Amino acid sequence: MNRPNELQTLDFKECLPLLRTQAFGRLVFTEQALPAIRLVNYSLHNGQIALRLGRSPWVPRLDRTVVAFEVDDIDKEAHTGWSVVVIGKARLVLDIDELVTLSDPSTRSWVPGPRDQVLCVDMEQVTGRRLRLVEH
Amino acid sequence: MNRPNELQTLDFKECLPLLRTQAFGRLVFTEQALPAIRLVNYSLHNGQIALRLGRSPWVPRLDRTVVAFEVDDIDKEAHTGWSVVVIGKARLVLDIDELVTLSDPSTRSWVPGPRDQVLCVDMEQVTGRRLRLVEH
Repeated sequence: MNRPNELQTLDFKECLPLLRTQAFGRLVFTEQALPAIRLVNYSLHNGQIALRLGRSPWVPRLDRTVVAFEVDDIDKEAHTGWSVVVIGKARLVLDIDELVTLSDPSTRSWVPGPRDQVLCVDMEQVTGRRLRLVEH
Repeated sequence: MNRPNELQTLDFKECLPLLRTQAFGRLVFTEQALPAIRLVNYSLHNGQIALRLGRSPWVPRLDRTVVAFEVDDIDKEAHTGWSVVVIGKARLVLDIDELVTLSDPSTRSWVPGPRDQVLCVDMEQVTGRRLRLVEH
C-alpha cells in the first residue's frame, strides 16, 4: 500500500524551471480531424518551445495552429511526479538566422534522419500539476 | 556522444504487450476547441483502455467522442524507448455491473479523491514506435 499523496496545482513560475529539466515532451495536435500525439525532443528558446522535426507532412500544416505540448517526470514506484502542459500557437520557422540560432546541439533529436523543419510554440497558457506524498 | 539509434514501427501485436507494462498514460482530447492532454492511470479490460477519472466536467463530454491515448517508456540516458498511441471512441460507463468489474485495484488512480467516472476507450487504431540502439 502506498502512502497517501496529494495533487498540487503549479503556476507559471513553478512550471518554467521544470520545463528546463527535460529533453523530450509530447506534441498534441489535430490531424485529419483526429487527435494526434507525438513524442519529440525540445528546448526552450526566448520563452518558446523549439522543436526540430523530421520531414513529415503534418509539420508544415501546424503553422499558425494552436497546439498543446506536455512534459512530465513521474516516479513509477513512489507514484509521485509532475506534468506541465503548454498551450499556444505553433509557428514554422523559415527565417535562416533564426534557424541557425535554433540549430544548437541542445535541440538535437534522438531520432535519426534529417530534422530540418523547426516549429516554435508560444507559451500562451502554461499549467502544471504535481502529485506528491503527503508530509506528516 | 550517444551511439546512433534507429526508429522502428510497431504493429498491433507488438504494441499490446507494451500497453500491459505501464500504469499511466496520457489522454488527448479537445476541450473548448483547444487541444488538451491529461496524465491518467489506466488498465486494459476486454480489449479496451479503462480510465477511472475524477469529477471534472470534461469527462462526461468525452462520451462518444474520438480520443487518443498515449503510453511510453523512455530511457533518458540511452535515448531509447517506445511510444504507443491508441485512437478510438470513448464511452462513459454507466452500467453498474460493468462499473463493478472495472473497479478492481488495478484501475486505481494515484491521484487522491473520488474517481467515480469511468471512461473506456476502444482500441480502433493502435500504432507504436520504438527508438533503439543500432546493433553492430
